[in-house]
Amino acid sequence: MTERMEQLHLEDLAIGQRFTSGTYVMEAARIKEFAAEFDPQPFHIDESAAEASVFKGLAASGWHTAAVAMRLLATGGLPLANGIVGVGGEIAWPRPTRPGDILHLETEIVEITPSRSKPNRGIVTVRATMFNQDGDVVFVLTPKLLVPKRPKC
Amino acid sequence: MTERMEQLHLEDLAIGQRFTSGTYVMEAARIKEFAAEFDPQPFHIDESAAEASVFKGLAASGWHTAAVAMRLLATGGLPLANGIVGVGGEIAWPRPTRPGDILHLETEIVEITPSRSKPNRGIVTVRATMFNQDGDVVFVLTPKLLVPKRPKC
Repeated sequence: MTERMEQLHLEDLAIGQRFTSGTYVMEAARIKEFAAEFDPQPFHIDESAAEASVFKGLAASGWHTAAVAMRLLATGGLPLANGIVGVGGEIAWPRPTRPGDILHLETEIVEITPSRSKPNRGIVTVRATMFNQDGDVVFVLTPKLLVPKRPKC
Repeated sequence: MTERMEQLHLEDLAIGQRFTSGTYVMEAARIKEFAAEFDPQPFHIDESAAEASVFKGLAASGWHTAAVAMRLLATGGLPLANGIVGVGGEIAWPRPTRPGDILHLETEIVEITPSRSKPNRGIVTVRATMFNQDGDVVFVLTPKLLVPKRPKC
């Protein structure tokens, strides 16, 4: 990957452009720890309770899955100049993630809107789709990101 | 709070009903640790880099803020029977959260849709608004939640 690829500015992006992230393995211990801190519900912490729940087995907090998606974007999945700064967007969790899942993201540029008030940047909407090792979609994130133009020399 | 209040089913909810969470204090060390694991970008990890960034000071990852919102919902902020299970929704981060911020959520029921295919439950849309100690809105989460009806005896 070239330095240029690692630092994409607004001018470098085009609708339909796609990026693929690395992978991340979900681990039972981390699922339980994350949930104990941020989403202390039995189906994210205890296997027996999870079996009896709507999840029918231990499932990561959706916010743990979301945080892993962010890690995959920030570590090569979306090589934007000045980093990945979102103002908001949409999220969906079609299926839970589970211990042993191997996750990756495929991300596509879906909209590019240059800012009217701030000519040195724009808002870029991307759709990041997270798959597990079976090809199931487990998370879809459609954030609006602030992306700078290349600095004028 | 009564037992009934702690276990609200679909029949107990009404549009406009409101709930207030407890509070959560953001700490610089946890902001940096969370970011190192899930959002390793300089403005979430290093004060100097953060000062020079669009955030103009250390800012928590938006996903850390989101995870704290989930904690506040799950620990009394939204007392739903069978817990809080979201299928997706919208998120917005109007401002960053920062070390020392004292956060709380105010949550309102905005839509209730009984399931056609599964008569024992429905989808409830809530709007959870997170405020800091100055009354600034720092996060808005509008999830669609699965909420069961009260079991028939």
